[in-house]
Amino acid sequence: MSSQRLFDHDPSTEPAFAHRVPVIFAHCDPAGIVFYPRLVEMINNVVEAWFDQLGCPFARLHGEMGMGVPTVTLQVEFNKACRLGEVLELALHLESLRHKRVGLRIQALCQGELRWQAAVTLVCVQLQPLKSTAWPPELLQAMQAAAPAHDGTKN
Amino acid sequence: MSSQRLFDHDPSTEPAFAHRVPVIFAHCDPAGIVFYPRLVEMINNVVEAWFDQLGCPFARLHGEMGMGVPTVTLQVEFNKACRLGEVLELALHLESLRHKRVGLRIQALCQGELRWQAAVTLVCVQLQPLKSTAWPPELLQAMQAAAPAHDGTKN
Amino acid sequence: MSSQRLFDHDPSTEPAFAHRVPVIFAHCDPAGIVFYPRLVEMINNVVEAWFDQLGCPFARLHGEMGMGVPTVTLQVEFNKACRLGEVLELALHLESLRHKRVGLRIQALCQGELRWQAAVTLVCVQLQPLKSTAWPPELLQAMQAAAPAHDGTKN
Amino acid sequence: MSSQRLFDHDPSTEPAFAHRVPVIFAHCDPAGIVFYPRLVEMINNVVEAWFDQLGCPFARLHGEMGMGVPTVTLQVEFNKACRLGEVLELALHLESLRHKRVGLRIQALCQGELRWQAAVTLVCVQLQPLKSTAWPPELLQAMQAAAPAHDGTKN
Repeated sequence: MSSQRLFDHDPSTEPAFAHRVPVIFAHCDPAGIVFYPRLVEMINNVVEAWFDQLGCPFARLHGEMGMGVPTVTLQVEFNKACRLGEVLELALHLESLRHKRVGLRIQALCQGELRWQAAVTLVCVQLQPLKSTAWPPELLQAMQAAAPAHDGTKN
Repeated sequence: MSSQRLFDHDPSTEPAFAHRVPVIFAHCDPAGIVFYPRLVEMINNVVEAWFDQLGCPFARLHGEMGMGVPTVTLQVEFNKACRLGEVLELALHLESLRHKRVGLRIQALCQGELRWQAAVTLVCVQLQPLKSTAWPPELLQAMQAAAPAHDGTKN
Repeated sequence: MSSQRLFDHDPSTEPAFAHRVPVIFAHCDPAGIVFYPRLVEMINNVVEAWFDQLGCPFARLHGEMGMGVPTVTLQVEFNKACRLGEVLELALHLESLRHKRVGLRIQALCQGELRWQAAVTLVCVQLQPLKSTAWPPELLQAMQAAAPAHDGTKN
Repeated sequence: MSSQRLFDHDPSTEPAFAHRVPVIFAHCDPAGIVFYPRLVEMINNVVEAWFDQLGCPFARLHGEMGMGVPTVTLQVEFNKACRLGEVLELALHLESLRHKRVGLRIQALCQGELRWQAAVTLVCVQLQPLKSTAWPPELLQAMQAAAPAHDGTKN
């Protein structure tokens, strides 16, 4: 692993999901900037909000469906500090979709400037007992519709 | 970026720092396992504890020294869920040391089993105004002593 | 201090500020309900959002104004657990307004049912050095306008 | 509710449990002091550590026993700001013990100075379905032993 850039920034593609996150006091550290574990919490939150839009809120996923989507890899590049009072525009891009996992890229911009970006891999699991499983068909279809150019049938 | 393993596990090297972290209620999510942003907070905490050991506590670093060590890249691989009541053995390895940055690898084991590991790159900054700067000599020396095989003079 | 009810519920008065907070995954604990320190974070967040509405965002308060509003007392009564996927309707009531402090009551309802309520006392401080100070006139006026029946001149 | 002191400070009694909590970076806000929801998290953590000592760790309580101890009332008085690098000495006092609930007082001192104190009421519940229940006999006995002067038979 190097300290080089982890990503190239390609703002041309349409995100599968976008939302705005104001930087609040609870996010910020004694240096006056966002404490990076709070940025990682934003990553989880934008994924959760995307699942709401996909018609599969986490309450239903973890409740009646008895499933979850744990994160198995996470990569984040912090390009510039985020400050109290700024508003981050988060864009979630679907990078890869497989039978049992999904790769997402999340970019956070503030007034057109890239502040940080992340890649996460989530796997679909059943909770009792904890083991990986295929996406439920309706959820797979909703993800495919969110990213029509992607092929959802591999592995 | 792929969904492949980010790391190879090499338990043979001596860590620069180690400490134990019990998994507590505040770490855990509705699936009964550690919520991954709390694991990322553990990463920050072990770095902070290492700086204590280096003789440069964050209170002094951020206070009288007017400096900080923001994280610029973060990569984490979650191999197995961590559960309430388990105790994680965190080992911090110094991977690379440069004039203005340091690369660290952190492994979390539970009863000899690798649960997650992370790589972080930290840069040395002055806070007012925020800009990268060289490590203070005493801190650089303390880091070099923690990892004698590493060369602290590059970049 | 007793274990009796801390509050009487009087839903008849108009709140000075209201907003909706969805219960998200990050709020919830292994029992599947909101972990109470996250509810306390919601209390801080609703106060912060109210200060935005008052024309005095925390970024400006803590930044150019060099001031803060630390909480000096907090009382919370948790009436019923809040669950993932529910939406809380938070209502902030101004209870007392003095030259250097303000007393707020915050109620959280879900579908008309009281889930928790809190009382907080905030003091106005300057940060360097940390000492209590009178509200800036524009902020005092904005608070008085938010609660016209209250007398802002005592103590 | 008034903005008066919530507590009298009586340092003469022996705590049922004590532990030390260093103030770390993750606790602190842009004003450089502990963000109060993090202090509330400390309250939960000290209760959890006390249950470990009582022989009933939360992992067993929430796991095999299918029980929990939700907080139903919380009162906190913040006397003086806590800063990065300080070490808080937390003392937990058992105030009242009933068949289905317990009242605790927690004081945080730093170098002999009271920084904050809290009172919490916890109720014993079974989780599925969520309803209050009597303390398991072994846990009740352990609590009584922790506070021999208290009468555990009321209500």
